[in-house]
Amino acid sequence: MKEVDQLYKIRHSLAHIMAQAVLEHYPKAKMGFGPPVDNGFYYDFDFGTEKISSEDFKKIEKSMYKIINQKQEFSIYYKPLDEAIELLAGMDQSYKVEYAKELVETGQAEDQGLSFYVNGSFTDMCEGPHINNTGEIPPKCFKLDRISGSYWRGDEKKPMLTRIYGLAFENEEELKDYIRRRELAMQRDHRKLGAELEIFLIDDEVGTGLPLWLPNGAVIRAELEAWAKDVEFKAGYHHVSTPSLSKSTLYLRSGHLPYYAESMFPPMVLDENTEYYLRPMNCPHHHKIYGFRPRSYRELPYRLAEYGDMFRYEKHGSLSGLLRVRAMCLNDAHIYCEYDQVKEEFAKVMDLYKYYYDYLRLGNFRVRLSLHDSESDKYVKDEEEWQFSEDIVREILNENKIDFIEERGEAAFYGPKVDIQIKNLLGREETVSTCQLDFVMAKRFDLWYSAKDGTMKQPYILHRAPLSTHERMISFLIEFWGGAFPTWMAPNQVMLIPVNEGVVDYAMEMKQKMTELGIRCDIDVSDDSFNKKIRKAVTKKTPNMWIIGENEKAEGTITWRRYCVQDQIKMSADAAIDKIVHLRTNRIMDNFADVQI
Amino acid sequence: MKEVDQLYKIRHSLAHIMAQAVLEHYPKAKMGFGPPVDNGFYYDFDFGTEKISSEDFKKIEKSMYKIINQKQEFSIYYKPLDEAIELLAGMDQSYKVEYAKELVETGQAEDQGLSFYVNGSFTDMCEGPHINNTGEIPPKCFKLDRISGSYWRGDEKKPMLTRIYGLAFENEEELKDYIRRRELAMQRDHRKLGAELEIFLIDDEVGTGLPLWLPNGAVIRAELEAWAKDVEFKAGYHHVSTPSLSKSTLYLRSGHLPYYAESMFPPMVLDENTEYYLRPMNCPHHHKIYGFRPRSYRELPYRLAEYGDMFRYEKHGSLSGLLRVRAMCLNDAHIYCEYDQVKEEFAKVMDLYKYYYDYLRLGNFRVRLSLHDSESDKYVKDEEEWQFSEDIVREILNENKIDFIEERGEAAFYGPKVDIQIKNLLGREETVSTCQLDFVMAKRFDLWYSAKDGTMKQPYILHRAPLSTHERMISFLIEFWGGAFPTWMAPNQVMLIPVNEGVVDYAMEMKQKMTELGIRCDIDVSDDSFNKKIRKAVTKKTPNMWIIGENEKAEGTITWRRYCVQDQIKMSADAAIDKIVHLRTNRIMDNFADVQI
Repeated sequence: MKEVDQLYKIRHSLAHIMAQAVLEHYPKAKMGFGPPVDNGFYYDFDFGTEKISSEDFKKIEKSMYKIINQKQEFSIYYKPLDEAIELLAGMDQSYKVEYAKELVETGQAEDQGLSFYVNGSFTDMCEGPHINNTGEIPPKCFKLDRISGSYWRGDEKKPMLTRIYGLAFENEEELKDYIRRRELAMQRDHRKLGAELEIFLIDDEVGTGLPLWLPNGAVIRAELEAWAKDVEFKAGYHHVSTPSLSKSTLYLRSGHLPYYAESMFPPMVLDENTEYYLRPMNCPHHHKIYGFRPRSYRELPYRLAEYGDMFRYEKHGSLSGLLRVRAMCLNDAHIYCEYDQVKEEFAKVMDLYKYYYDYLRLGNFRVRLSLHDSESDKYVKDEEEWQFSEDIVREILNENKIDFIEERGEAAFYGPKVDIQIKNLLGREETVSTCQLDFVMAKRFDLWYSAKDGTMKQPYILHRAPLSTHERMISFLIEFWGGAFPTWMAPNQVMLIPVNEGVVDYAMEMKQKMTELGIRCDIDVSDDSFNKKIRKAVTKKTPNMWIIGENEKAEGTITWRRYCVQDQIKMSADAAIDKIVHLRTNRIMDNFADVQI
Repeated sequence: MKEVDQLYKIRHSLAHIMAQAVLEHYPKAKMGFGPPVDNGFYYDFDFGTEKISSEDFKKIEKSMYKIINQKQEFSIYYKPLDEAIELLAGMDQSYKVEYAKELVETGQAEDQGLSFYVNGSFTDMCEGPHINNTGEIPPKCFKLDRISGSYWRGDEKKPMLTRIYGLAFENEEELKDYIRRRELAMQRDHRKLGAELEIFLIDDEVGTGLPLWLPNGAVIRAELEAWAKDVEFKAGYHHVSTPSLSKSTLYLRSGHLPYYAESMFPPMVLDENTEYYLRPMNCPHHHKIYGFRPRSYRELPYRLAEYGDMFRYEKHGSLSGLLRVRAMCLNDAHIYCEYDQVKEEFAKVMDLYKYYYDYLRLGNFRVRLSLHDSESDKYVKDEEEWQFSEDIVREILNENKIDFIEERGEAAFYGPKVDIQIKNLLGREETVSTCQLDFVMAKRFDLWYSAKDGTMKQPYILHRAPLSTHERMISFLIEFWGGAFPTWMAPNQVMLIPVNEGVVDYAMEMKQKMTELGIRCDIDVSDDSFNKKIRKAVTKKTPNMWIIGENEKAEGTITWRRYCVQDQIKMSADAAIDKIVHLRTNRIMDNFADVQI
């Protein structure tokens, strides 16, 4: 029996209890599957001609509470295969019969037969495990959530069943917290805000998975990129710009062909018989730049960086917003160094991650350290190199007190992998970026340097991408910040709000002055009321609203209202412009109420 | 007979005179073709087993001068076809015989027979025209230039002939000027300087036509792009960022498929049967952004800009350096405006061209105005629209006193085209960029705006790309400036040159300070002599060398030596850093000796 935690058992048991309650009200309903899921449980039913809607949830929940209060014991028994099928047929549960037969035919049934769980009047073919009795369900820890259609076995040629979802957590408080967070996540969904704030566009004629960045989104990308490049410049990186396609020869050398081919776009054949591929990764191009002329140890660590366009084949059905795309732009870099520089360079990379994530207030990241499996054929055979690389990562993570878990057998074929994970708004861990240690590619690409001792040596390579792809990072930023970007990244940095027509000239003059300084500002010259103008700017999440009335015009001032705090402060127009320049130049994170500007 | 100018006749006659001289020295040589070309002439010969080299030029030239001094008359006569072939066979000129037969078989011979030109003892089958007599060749206006191999009829299955090239101009001065300019062009060839200055790399495993921009080149690209974006921001452009591929549906709508298909990469088929294409142009993506929501006249002119990656299929054999590539990045923008705004917007675009070209000192540009041909099927049928568009361009060009020529039948299918041309180092006109007026795409893409009068109207579209592609523009800049970029664009802005080890700490401190300010600087800590350090920095065309000796360290100064002028000026280190910031921020063109900094 599976090792699972109590919450899993609660959710699984609630699925049974719900089915039990549903059958009370709809005795002819046929059951499909009913597993626990990561926020509760569901069960699929065939209701035949009967209709069911969320309005029926109340009566089902009422029945569920009755079952819970009865503290019905869960017990398991096994039936030989024939008897099991007979039993299910007797219960008129045709989907269960079909599934039981399949288990038998495919040899998945256990020796002692098929297992059944019983509680009170309810029996279900089930592997378990369950709680001891229905009384163990914590008070008010669950809630029926929603109904959707779902094909039996996920197969669109099979009947459409009705799926009822329930939410379930360890206690009422966690359930409420989850509902609150989900509400927030829905309001902040980057697809929803991305459309409302005109950040990006998915167009069917161009292709799903190929987002077009609208003017507002292009500003955010450009600001993020400019920041990364400034940080990288000061950290000694050299930027390059390489083409997003290549002849197949490059990927045969790197090993992406054939090992990574299924994630790549199909080739384009030119010049009669030469295959060109859109690149799935930037590494091979960078290795070419390292290798184009002899290198000396004096140049190491040699750090090559590029916000590089990459293309990956994802199934059409899995494409969604900015999170699952086919074209992306990665905050990539490769660091070529001596073996005794690896530790320091990797520590610097981890510092860079910490710096970015703290700066952007993304919360602490967690690390999943993916190690090789010496038993598996998937990995380059070189135990000494693996030992060296894996020890270094572990050491650095420990020294820097970075929270991490290890997973064996998940490394890249050329070295250990560090997956950087943050919790999204729903509390689920998401991989933002991957950092790799690589002792293989220098050999494949025949990369060398002349060492201090006069010998020729091969460099060690670190792969890093702290700011992930623009697509992924900006989708997180939109959701974490609810679309309210700090002044330095905001598409519109200042909205000038004249209270009447008499002050529009003054506002225009100011806009002109700010545009000359490269400040992104707009002016609301519509006929809308003052309050509506404020509301419109708030809806667009403009970080700074400058209200301009007769007094302001007379005094040469503006009244500054921030998006994130409600106070209004009057100051001279020149001082206000200086402040915007300061916010921009120093990349102040002024979209948080706790930040003074 | 063709209408040609005197220079054409001189060059053509020199080809005959050279062949005549060659036959004097090599009576068994068989002649191929011998036409005039744009810097002189050539003639192909089959020398059999005899060897010829540039050392033989002197004696050939001597014979040519003898022929010239004899003032031999050129005369033409016609031979019936049979007789002509017989004559050539009698002269033992087998290639000429072959060609004469082909002219006859393909019906290209004239009614009166094949024409022959005679001067002195020399006869050649030739269409002419020629000068009256060899004495018309201006003194010292020509020079035999070089020898190369060339297949008969350009067909590699046919015999390899020996081609002798000659240079010829209207007078001695122009010949010398051409040779001088060609020498300069060779020294400054962007492929040569691109390698020496580590600007870009062509790698065979990646693919010819797909340049990789090395760190130095990436700086130049980024600076050019940042400048363009600043200029565009102030001119009211909105930047976007769109994917470099699309489903075929987009190009079927735009008409690129099938009309432009032969310049496109082949499609990639995904999702079973959907074709995706690398984009050959950015326009359709921008039209999608214009059209994604309703637009009002208040938003017009709406200017969308993007340095956009594009991909074009060019034949492998034609690929060369940065000038003929398959992947390129265009300084693109599309301006959507009302019909009565077209004139003003187009004038602004022309001003922008003038601003950029003056700033970069590319010399005056000339415009080739490509008009439609109302007789041809190639163009959208709408005489009124064509009239409107062509009149506007002509008007603006005249009003702005821009030198232009008109060519009928060269327009884009959707509107007139303005090709902007500059003279390269050899004095040959090159098209840098194309600007188009487009009254068609708004209809194809169903683009609208609500006009002031409440009706829905379709916008007019201008396409412009003043800074061309990075590839083309940077190849020009390298050649025009001989690789010496101004401080603001220079990959390395300052080279610190410590005169001995005792001052390295001071130089290091300065480098640290400058790096924090985002200044690109390097320090020469090699053991090389002072003079060698200077020479190295000069070879790399670093615009500013800061010499640091004991005195400088003691005083907190540096001695500044510019690349383009030889003087050395001592100033305080702080003032020097401020000056670099000034040069960078204000994008001063300090690589010209006439510019004070």
